[in-house]
Amino acid sequence: MIKIDELLKQSGGWLAPGDDNAVVISSRVRLARNLKDCAFPGWAGEEECERIWSDLLPVLRSCKSLSKPLYSGLVDMSVLDKQVLFERHLISREHANKKKGSGIVLRRDENMSVMVNEEDHLRMQAMRPGLELTTCWDKVNELDSEIEQQVRYAFSPKIGYLTACPSNVGTGMRASAMLNVPGLVLMNEINAVVKGMAKIGLAIRGLWGEGSEAAGNMFQVSNQMTLGEKEEDIAENLEQIVLEIVEHEKNARARLTETQENLIRDHVGRAVGILSEAYILSSKEALDLLSDLRLGIDMGILTSVNRRTVDYLILLTQPGHLQKIEGRKLKTKERDSVRARLVRERIRTAIKK
Amino acid sequence: MIKIDELLKQSGGWLAPGDDNAVVISSRVRLARNLKDCAFPGWAGEEECERIWSDLLPVLRSCKSLSKPLYSGLVDMSVLDKQVLFERHLISREHANKKKGSGIVLRRDENMSVMVNEEDHLRMQAMRPGLELTTCWDKVNELDSEIEQQVRYAFSPKIGYLTACPSNVGTGMRASAMLNVPGLVLMNEINAVVKGMAKIGLAIRGLWGEGSEAAGNMFQVSNQMTLGEKEEDIAENLEQIVLEIVEHEKNARARLTETQENLIRDHVGRAVGILSEAYILSSKEALDLLSDLRLGIDMGILTSVNRRTVDYLILLTQPGHLQKIEGRKLKTKERDSVRARLVRERIRTAIKK
Repeated sequence: MIKIDELLKQSGGWLAPGDDNAVVISSRVRLARNLKDCAFPGWAGEEECERIWSDLLPVLRSCKSLSKPLYSGLVDMSVLDKQVLFERHLISREHANKKKGSGIVLRRDENMSVMVNEEDHLRMQAMRPGLELTTCWDKVNELDSEIEQQVRYAFSPKIGYLTACPSNVGTGMRASAMLNVPGLVLMNEINAVVKGMAKIGLAIRGLWGEGSEAAGNMFQVSNQMTLGEKEEDIAENLEQIVLEIVEHEKNARARLTETQENLIRDHVGRAVGILSEAYILSSKEALDLLSDLRLGIDMGILTSVNRRTVDYLILLTQPGHLQKIEGRKLKTKERDSVRARLVRERIRTAIKK
Repeated sequence: MIKIDELLKQSGGWLAPGDDNAVVISSRVRLARNLKDCAFPGWAGEEECERIWSDLLPVLRSCKSLSKPLYSGLVDMSVLDKQVLFERHLISREHANKKKGSGIVLRRDENMSVMVNEEDHLRMQAMRPGLELTTCWDKVNELDSEIEQQVRYAFSPKIGYLTACPSNVGTGMRASAMLNVPGLVLMNEINAVVKGMAKIGLAIRGLWGEGSEAAGNMFQVSNQMTLGEKEEDIAENLEQIVLEIVEHEKNARARLTETQENLIRDHVGRAVGILSEAYILSSKEALDLLSDLRLGIDMGILTSVNRRTVDYLILLTQPGHLQKIEGRKLKTKERDSVRARLVRERIRTAIKK
């Protein structure tokens, strides 16, 4: 069983702060795989799913790249615990809603995880802080090979790996990067960048995937094509594009410093002020303000708070994490007040140090 | 000559903080008077105005109730200095724009002052912190009597004192009180109160008179009738009405504490946070936030800053005061940044103490 309280003590696989992730928060590559001669999870009955889960679990536990992983059947987990896994990007919202026969296996450092019986039998991912798409590809490729030594995948020599949704057929691969681009937002240049990415076939989403808002100047960019391209090329191409966005963002920040330093100081100062003094904070506002702190730190304006504290708070202020920390279910209004208290305490402590 | 730099060291006649002015910031009574057989200032030529000013100055200087007053011809003052007098409620905007033959005479403590050749030959006022309308009336009445011993007023036995504008004919008296009613604003009850006051013939204006916005939950209420009522009655009636508003406000605050303490704490906390950390502050925002601090202090939520500091800042953050402190003319954008610095420094110092 995965002990969620233990996970809460670490800052997760995607937010673990590095030095070089000022603009690129994290990278992620996932592969969708299915077992030969088994119905896709959506078609399989409960029994078949349970059989698949109990067949796959020992296989996954034996994989060296998962190094003695944690695991749990989703049926054994509370709604709140699954919410925490979702907020840590370890399971999807759809997966959280599945019951018997679905499970999660993950490395203790959260850098790799496998969802069993989500939309496909296997959804494996590698996740790292900073811009590490090719490394993520290498890691998840390694895991994929390990698994393939023990099971037979549904595969067509003509089109590649078969998946439940046609949009994943072929490589079954999705590479994505989470970006923090307050400079482009403040300079009103973000829309042009987003349009440009859409034009070359990339998808833009909020931090928590489809349907989530691109709040706090942060968003995810990912490939949509899974057919007709080699996996290495997908990872490398996206990495190149992300590098260009990083350049744009750095450029915007430089121009901001030059022409509007006071505006940024004001922006960052207000964020510090509100986060240290507010008694009510919505999830969206907290994310926006924490993103402003990140900008201040990256630009050398804010030295009293470090990025680790901020990144950790981005995670801890999510609804599931908050309720888990507080040890009970909280209504939206209660969460807003508990969130404000948590942030207030941590930011004040950081500033005093 | 009035030394504006000296004035800047005191917090003015209307903001001098008392203990009992949580809701009523200050009270003011002014009388409009004109000299018999002289054209009203608007009709009199420059020469006649200059003659009136030099005739009246010694009279006013001799008045005991002004106790060796400061005085200045407006022609001798810079635009900025006049702006400071305006912000301290010692002269009107119209008066500031007059040139030769207009002047100001004031008690050193700023509790009493006389504008010469504004719209009328004499506009004398008494001003005090807190709810002191009847005292203000007594004081200004005393001064009026002193002056009347030396000059002859334009007076009709039938309708009373004659004034340039018919709206002042009769008593020539305007009594007003400045109120701070964040409770009524937060409880959405302010509109009903304002409507009620308008119904019984009172005028509602912003802190700096006609055309100024009722920012920061603060506004002025004053009588409009100057005909057919005795001066004592005008002062007493307004005092009664203000006392009722004070009750409404206290009641609103009590209900707020009971039902929405967190909302107020949030409100006050954010104000503290922004005022201590912002690098750009408009005049309107500063006033709004300082009013929130005042609420926090009055409700016992905010103990690290005292009312004196807040009230003083309300005055010092006004455009004229800011420029005078900074020792130079400032454009709006510069003022916003100088204002933010001044507030930041003073609030931080107050909190550290």
